[in-house]
Amino acid sequence: MFVILVYDTAVERNPKVLKTCRKYLHWTQRSVFHGELSAAQYRALMTALRGVIDPDYDSIVTYSARSPDLIESGSLGVSLGGPGDIL
Amino acid sequence: MFVILVYDTAVERNPKVLKTCRKYLHWTQRSVFHGELSAAQYRALMTALRGVIDPDYDSIVTYSARSPDLIESGSLGVSLGGPGDIL
Repeated sequence: MFVILVYDTAVERNPKVLKTCRKYLHWTQRSVFHGELSAAQYRALMTALRGVIDPDYDSIVTYSARSPDLIESGSLGVSLGGPGDIL
Repeated sequence: MFVILVYDTAVERNPKVLKTCRKYLHWTQRSVFHGELSAAQYRALMTALRGVIDPDYDSIVTYSARSPDLIESGSLGVSLGGPGDIL
């Protein structure tokens, strides 16, 4: 599955959230990651993040599609870790 | 089409970027919007954003799918303007 993950977490937890996301996904842009994961990898990522965030304060949202072929990407301005490399 | 838009723009341009995105999409989370747009609306949004950002400094990335049915969403922690309302 193709996953886009966005996070909004407290500054003091950002490094741990970043490190966890980097194990599974590619960095797109400030607080955004994307990549292909198996369902098991997706569950493992969610479990790892659950252990890192404060659920009363932080927020993580994912959007997923069955295949990257179902997702088209576009961009304006500078390309950061943009999706161009894998889509 | 279903569109997820993430932006990383200079602080001084954020209000204009936010205002432009809000005309077309729902706010998901800090610097992330989503929503259903026609192809014409998508082009109009991109054109409007092009007039607002500094292309040498700012970055906007979009992910789109033909239909919201192709996208599943998930979340951890607090729900902000989360996608639950329309997905």
